[in-house]
Amino acid sequence: MKIVVLPGDGIGKEVTAEAVRALHAVIGSELPLELTEAVIGGEGLERFGDALPPDTLDISRKADAILLGGTGVPEDERRAPSEGAGYGLLKLRKALGLYANFRPVVLYPELVDASTLKPEIVTGVDLIILRELTGDLYFGQPRGVSRDETGARVGINTMRYTDAEIERIAHAGFQAAAKRRKKLCSVDKANVLETMALWREVVIEVSKQYPDVELTHLYIDAASMALIRNPKQFDVVVTGNVFGDILSDAAAMLAGSIGMLPSASLGDHNKGLYEPVHGTAPDIAGKDLANPLAAILSVAMMLRQSFGRDQHASRIEQAVRSVLREGYRTADIYQPGCRKIGTRAMGEAVVEAI
Amino acid sequence: MKIVVLPGDGIGKEVTAEAVRALHAVIGSELPLELTEAVIGGEGLERFGDALPPDTLDISRKADAILLGGTGVPEDERRAPSEGAGYGLLKLRKALGLYANFRPVVLYPELVDASTLKPEIVTGVDLIILRELTGDLYFGQPRGVSRDETGARVGINTMRYTDAEIERIAHAGFQAAAKRRKKLCSVDKANVLETMALWREVVIEVSKQYPDVELTHLYIDAASMALIRNPKQFDVVVTGNVFGDILSDAAAMLAGSIGMLPSASLGDHNKGLYEPVHGTAPDIAGKDLANPLAAILSVAMMLRQSFGRDQHASRIEQAVRSVLREGYRTADIYQPGCRKIGTRAMGEAVVEAI
Ligand SMILES: CC(C)[C@H](C(=O)O)[C@@H](O)C(=O)O
Ligand SMILES: CC(C)[C@H](C(=O)O)[C@@H](O)C(=O)O
Repeated sequence: MKIVVLPGDGIGKEVTAEAVRALHAVIGSELPLELTEAVIGGEGLERFGDALPPDTLDISRKADAILLGGTGVPEDERRAPSEGAGYGLLKLRKALGLYANFRPVVLYPELVDASTLKPEIVTGVDLIILRELTGDLYFGQPRGVSRDETGARVGINTMRYTDAEIERIAHAGFQAAAKRRKKLCSVDKANVLETMALWREVVIEVSKQYPDVELTHLYIDAASMALIRNPKQFDVVVTGNVFGDILSDAAAMLAGSIGMLPSASLGDHNKGLYEPVHGTAPDIAGKDLANPLAAILSVAMMLRQSFGRDQHASRIEQAVRSVLREGYRTADIYQPGCRKIGTRAMGEAVVEAI
Repeated sequence: MKIVVLPGDGIGKEVTAEAVRALHAVIGSELPLELTEAVIGGEGLERFGDALPPDTLDISRKADAILLGGTGVPEDERRAPSEGAGYGLLKLRKALGLYANFRPVVLYPELVDASTLKPEIVTGVDLIILRELTGDLYFGQPRGVSRDETGARVGINTMRYTDAEIERIAHAGFQAAAKRRKKLCSVDKANVLETMALWREVVIEVSKQYPDVELTHLYIDAASMALIRNPKQFDVVVTGNVFGDILSDAAAMLAGSIGMLPSASLGDHNKGLYEPVHGTAPDIAGKDLANPLAAILSVAMMLRQSFGRDQHASRIEQAVRSVLREGYRTADIYQPGCRKIGTRAMGEAVVEAI
């Protein structure tokens, strides 16, 4: 198992350290583990003047799987988007063709109280947001800021999807739904945007190959309301890159905290990139406050998706479940009566439970 | 007071009828009321082959204010975006230069239980989402679906903002915040999109003219989480057309139901367009089930913004408050122990309370 670890910036470093510990604990000496660490994001900019140094891309290409913490630094606010730390991650996703970003949103029963939603609304939530990850406004050309004849500045970005791009993510969505409760909700803005009307058309075409999966459609505005109004109606939700970015953060309270949300980004090959949905949280970085469970659960996704190790994946997930049951909580999911602990201690608790 | 009423489609017709009744009730014979009804949306398409018939635009231009129900019909799903019923509304907003869409989100204390969020999270919510309404992906060129050399279909839409467009909406945001709790949160995706980096830059420039208003920034993904995690931190939220569309629907549960959310769209002149945030809800249209309060509260916004009639506006708002206090509820905000009534009866209850 050749795995590249890209801790990245901020709390990314802290949470990947715990995730790696959990990985070692569950694999032990059962399987040969080859871990390499490489630099990305703000650290890449600082040390090599590049948010995705060529070496990092190279090592990532050769690995079976990649575990990433997060990218982004406060200085990004003074940089152009294509020169910021976060851009390293976008380039990596694109270069590796990782177009299917699975973001499962599961509420552990122990965390019902951590949600800002009422218990009867969120208890039992179990859905996947499947976000297209290599198209849309994120990568469309032309883009940039220019000046027109009058000297006024104009900012441009291009939302762009080809039918082939939509087809493959639709297939991923139907296949995921077929293995679950057989419901796929496609989210677009087909009433306003031609790109999204094409999205809907292609998803409907692809649906004919999956007669067992019930397909529904929602506009993104309605979807972002429905997610908070009645989240249990959803099984798999498939959407574009920008809408998926928004919806998956909006879904954080369904899981109690964004610190609980793992993700897997896959392409047409087995290789996958695994990362927590949360960012680098500069405000709490280095303070032993971050929740490492999203990163640890990302390792479970890696074991299942990239290595077919269902049992090992389940052992991690059960360990997470059991530390929650024992009452251990990082600050983001803390509730009175529980035991508040830091990043390191939470990682250790999981290792022990494994 | 020259007012054009555009009922539009679906429940738009039902809710504007009640809103007009409330308007008559509060104005009585105190002021001369000149109401004209005109056709827009699906009805425009059906009768004149145009979602914004020239006559409707003409009458709207000449009016002091416009009251709109909603536009959109089920057939839109089989139409190109620029040929759908909803497009009539987009064209109207653009033609009248109504770039500043104010969407207040207020939770009436009587509706705390109608929210899917916990009472301690939503009690006291009082914020405004200020959505830019005439730019962004909604109007940017080029747009459309074409075929490339290989015959593949490609969908394109253009996110586009000029510095002048950002400046004027930023001013509107700071001015609104200055009259309230003096906090403005600007929502963008400046870490990924150049257009949004320009957005942030211009908002920061404009902020220098408003030293009394505290300016913060959030990325749209983080904002959509923050709105559900801790909504009371927000006073005025300013954002682009697409992000504003999404955020304001996501905010529905903060007010108990999207059926409670009014809006005002203003330009550089006094004229305004007032409409509920909700859509045409074809599934419940014509069934006397819709909540007319968003439309009725839109009339209150009209009286205040377009006619400077604060007292009349307050009388409507207090009437809404009092029918809620008396326990009247449409289905969307119904809670056990309350009296479930229909659209008409709710309208009547408000008229009586006025
Ligand atoms: C860091 C940023 C570029 C990234 C994105 O927008 O994709 C993040 O928000 C995410 O969701 O993974
Ligand atoms: C009907 C539709 C075109 C419209 C929009 O997207 O602006 C609606 O969702 C709204 O929010 O007013």
